[in-house]
Amino acid sequence: MIIEDVRNLLSANDRIAAANRERFARWGAYVVNLMSAPGAGKTTILERTLGGLHERYRLAVIEGDVRGSFDRDRLRAVVDVPIIQINTEIAYGGECHLDALMIANGIGDVDLPGTDFVFIENVGNLVCPAEFDVGEASKVMVASVTEGEDKPLKYPLMYSVCEVLLLNKIDIAVAVAFDRDQFLKNCRSVNPGLTVIELSARTGEGMSTWLDWLTSKIPA
Amino acid sequence: MIIEDVRNLLSANDRIAAANRERFARWGAYVVNLMSAPGAGKTTILERTLGGLHERYRLAVIEGDVRGSFDRDRLRAVVDVPIIQINTEIAYGGECHLDALMIANGIGDVDLPGTDFVFIENVGNLVCPAEFDVGEASKVMVASVTEGEDKPLKYPLMYSVCEVLLLNKIDIAVAVAFDRDQFLKNCRSVNPGLTVIELSARTGEGMSTWLDWLTSKIPA
Repeated sequence: MIIEDVRNLLSANDRIAAANRERFARWGAYVVNLMSAPGAGKTTILERTLGGLHERYRLAVIEGDVRGSFDRDRLRAVVDVPIIQINTEIAYGGECHLDALMIANGIGDVDLPGTDFVFIENVGNLVCPAEFDVGEASKVMVASVTEGEDKPLKYPLMYSVCEVLLLNKIDIAVAVAFDRDQFLKNCRSVNPGLTVIELSARTGEGMSTWLDWLTSKIPA
Repeated sequence: MIIEDVRNLLSANDRIAAANRERFARWGAYVVNLMSAPGAGKTTILERTLGGLHERYRLAVIEGDVRGSFDRDRLRAVVDVPIIQINTEIAYGGECHLDALMIANGIGDVDLPGTDFVFIENVGNLVCPAEFDVGEASKVMVASVTEGEDKPLKYPLMYSVCEVLLLNKIDIAVAVAFDRDQFLKNCRSVNPGLTVIELSARTGEGMSTWLDWLTSKIPA
């Protein structure tokens, strides 16, 4: 019975995700669903990403948080792009992830034709966000070298559903004795096709590789 | 309708948590529910904690993971204490937290009278674990200096339900430009009574303060 309920819920989510996807396609937008554990650096990477792209592309952001608009305010300080804030605490009982309905409700009547990229910053969590299609084109995750080498094996769904992994904070990899080879081996064991981009959002190292990956998705 | 369902679920959880608590009391055990984001250092802290206490106290561990038994194997390498492994992926659809029923099922018929401390290592997640009483005496969270100063404001339930915060990885606080004063201010704003213990599980600095806090809970 419970399994059937979950299936119905996911089926409903997938129908709404498909509608979101059609809507984003009408805008012409490439949509990235950005996920990670709390503190891995999603927002800092977004700050750099918006800063690096905004002169050439039209951008928008959908911010998911349990409470508050701290990340929205940080991004707003970098560049003025449309930002939709979703708080799961107010309307959705403090949910630990975004789902397709939250995205649809968050967008509401807002229409952004001509947008090149929409970045969805999911709630910081390595478990449930991986389960929900929200209508994105690509699922991208951020992992920090401070989290340890074992995380792909402990949170396999997240690591397996993502197309790209941004390995962040490589500037402090030595300081935290990060075992890069073991981490990459663990990544491959759950997702052989994973694209890994190593970077530091703080120093900017590696960011150009990530921006190149993004802009390759947009016709010249 | 949905709200009613959630209330019933939590009420059922609380009844089972109360039964767990009675059971732990019969053992004479002080039970710590240890929670954090993935990679904050729960397992490394537990390694040091078990190592520091096992000669004077009888210990047991309940390990919660989505998949695998990596943490159990790490702890087993430190000291031989009873460890119960709960995997949420197999029996509970990949749940992102432990609840009271998982603890009750995990213990099953195991009886551990004379145990002084039971450490429950929850699933790495700053959202849902905070919502579930599992029958513990104290909720303790680990935060890493690498996660940033804003997390108490973004995950307020976790920071407000915990009695103790172990602020880990202080040995790299300077390297990640951690703003300690801002972090502590944010902690106080959501939980004025929070006990903060600053430590590094890697170097061992501050661990004695944490062990003193624990042993103060056991009659001499």
